[in-house]
Amino acid sequence: MLYFDHAASSFPKPAQVGEAMKQAVDEFAANPGRGGHALSQKAGSIVKQARIEIAQFFEAPHANHVWFYQNATMALNQAILGFPFSSGDHIITTAYEHNSVLRPLHRLQQEMNVQVTYLTPDDSELFQVEDVLEQITDQTKMIVISHASNVTGAIFPLKELGQQLKDRSITVVVDASQTAGKVDIQMERDHIDLLAVAGHKGLLGPQGTGALISYSDYDLKPLILGGTGAYSELETQPPNWPERYESGTLNTPGIAGLLAGIQAIKERGIQTIQSHEEALMQMFLEGVSTIEAVTCFGPTDLQKRVAVVSFHVKHLASHELAMILDNHYQIAVRAGLHCSPKTHHHLQTADEGLVRVSFGPYNTVEEVQQLIDAISDIVEAFIE
Amino acid sequence: MLYFDHAASSFPKPAQVGEAMKQAVDEFAANPGRGGHALSQKAGSIVKQARIEIAQFFEAPHANHVWFYQNATMALNQAILGFPFSSGDHIITTAYEHNSVLRPLHRLQQEMNVQVTYLTPDDSELFQVEDVLEQITDQTKMIVISHASNVTGAIFPLKELGQQLKDRSITVVVDASQTAGKVDIQMERDHIDLLAVAGHKGLLGPQGTGALISYSDYDLKPLILGGTGAYSELETQPPNWPERYESGTLNTPGIAGLLAGIQAIKERGIQTIQSHEEALMQMFLEGVSTIEAVTCFGPTDLQKRVAVVSFHVKHLASHELAMILDNHYQIAVRAGLHCSPKTHHHLQTADEGLVRVSFGPYNTVEEVQQLIDAISDIVEAFIE
Repeated sequence: MLYFDHAASSFPKPAQVGEAMKQAVDEFAANPGRGGHALSQKAGSIVKQARIEIAQFFEAPHANHVWFYQNATMALNQAILGFPFSSGDHIITTAYEHNSVLRPLHRLQQEMNVQVTYLTPDDSELFQVEDVLEQITDQTKMIVISHASNVTGAIFPLKELGQQLKDRSITVVVDASQTAGKVDIQMERDHIDLLAVAGHKGLLGPQGTGALISYSDYDLKPLILGGTGAYSELETQPPNWPERYESGTLNTPGIAGLLAGIQAIKERGIQTIQSHEEALMQMFLEGVSTIEAVTCFGPTDLQKRVAVVSFHVKHLASHELAMILDNHYQIAVRAGLHCSPKTHHHLQTADEGLVRVSFGPYNTVEEVQQLIDAISDIVEAFIE
Repeated sequence: MLYFDHAASSFPKPAQVGEAMKQAVDEFAANPGRGGHALSQKAGSIVKQARIEIAQFFEAPHANHVWFYQNATMALNQAILGFPFSSGDHIITTAYEHNSVLRPLHRLQQEMNVQVTYLTPDDSELFQVEDVLEQITDQTKMIVISHASNVTGAIFPLKELGQQLKDRSITVVVDASQTAGKVDIQMERDHIDLLAVAGHKGLLGPQGTGALISYSDYDLKPLILGGTGAYSELETQPPNWPERYESGTLNTPGIAGLLAGIQAIKERGIQTIQSHEEALMQMFLEGVSTIEAVTCFGPTDLQKRVAVVSFHVKHLASHELAMILDNHYQIAVRAGLHCSPKTHHHLQTADEGLVRVSFGPYNTVEEVQQLIDAISDIVEAFIE
């Protein structure tokens, strides 16, 4: 199986990930922070270590600003639905967001009378900071931005936006599902207030992990309430972080696996990973550029995108192409709308969707060549 | 390490659990249901198998009525905060609930003007069905009940309650954190509408897993919104189950581990496990009954409780006793309020908390004897 679906989940994981999870389950599957005994302390210490590692990785102010959730979706919900909006408040976002952002925003529009502006990219498929600034009103309380589109790969210029926002009190929420572990992210430098990350994509951890990292205190209301280990006597969530935002038993084995994934990234170096994936993307784009029936989407400036390429083949439905690649070539890609319906509306590809290939740190040039050859074969057989 | 903290998390897990998780991570860590390729299908098929297994295990009407969450807390939040309450609605619960129930109920009281009645048990530490029935008004929409207390072990007579509720439209929410995998639960027979289970306690799965099982449709509002793999074009959550209530990537390795845990229970037989744990509890209660300084809490009728025993030792703080057991005897127990503050208020043990021991399927009589001996030693050394 050649795997080019890293935008959905990275595969394979570093061997340490599965090992760390098995060790957590076999050796200290006690409840972290829920008891003082040795096994519970060991579980708690792995969770703490992961919190510290993640805080350092994204240059968050403190480990307690890292809150663990089952996926990036839950992290984004906590950031967006948990924010203290009032009726009439305004949010700026893009039409290129995932449903994990679009659906919470839609609920705020329906139930809270919050106004939402959806920006579209320019002709080069890039978002411009000026377009965001133009939309800001006195009611604008939040900007929610996908750091990179999961369809076109286009990277949003966060740092440039942040520089323009310095004197305003607008909370910037960043969905880093496609960039965490693939692009260097520094919360302070990049002016990120709330950073949502998936554990199982670029960070190379297991599914079942994600985190919201809060730069400062935005008075978020906890979405999920329950046991916090300490402060049991309170009728409400305690004010303390991370307890306030983490109710119930944490996913210790998942978090142990995520820690191992991040350590593997650090060993290799995020710049090395980024260059490697960019080279594979470039090779793919050049390879399919000679196939006339193939149209690729996304920015032409490769510095401004992550290694995600969506394309269509003339006269061939995206699901059909993906199925042929899977069945006949054992090549995993992803067809459809990629949970980002407005992106496809803007690209005018909503009816058929697109086929998406996304590259990971362990993909090789040989694999990419096989992918190009397979697409070339299929086009020849089915189209010409 | 002798482990008597099963009420917090079961340990050890069956060997298959860690193996199933490692296999899921190493062999098919793709995104279930998010793409049609072979790895994604394999991941999806494990999730589906677990859904079917859990539905059968609790006699739920259909696998799609099983919704996976990161813990029982999230499942309870979805049931309670997601319920379509109106101002003035009434809920009956007990003072023996965990904070995962108490805190969501408190939010409903504060923000929705929902009225909550907290029942206390009788002198034998048991809840009586008549006490519940007496509190029902025309406004009563929900009864939230812990199937067994995580402090006293007392089992609530669900079946008897359900028989009395047959002709009423009151939704019964059951927190089975202490009973799932330890006591036979059948949703229809036991008249359970919404069943919340933890994956990492009696079900012997890993942390990071839990489920809400919905017997029928109660028009719950999804708490978390986002990508659902299919139906991407909708602005709201799709009506389809389980997608409506499961946003974002599922914890495939965790769910694979949970499936392995449940299979291990089925192999041994839930009746066998229940008898085994009851025998250990009986042995413990008899063993410490001869130590004058020890006072145990909970029903005397062992048929009416699970194998959870909380106790205190005269003139010895609960945290101190737990620490001595941990440091000097390598025995894991749990001291404090157990995230159930109202229980301890009722027992008048809120200042000091209690020490809780809880037994699991792999504990042995030799281990329990060592526990009794250790407590006896400590009492002799510190008290007498």
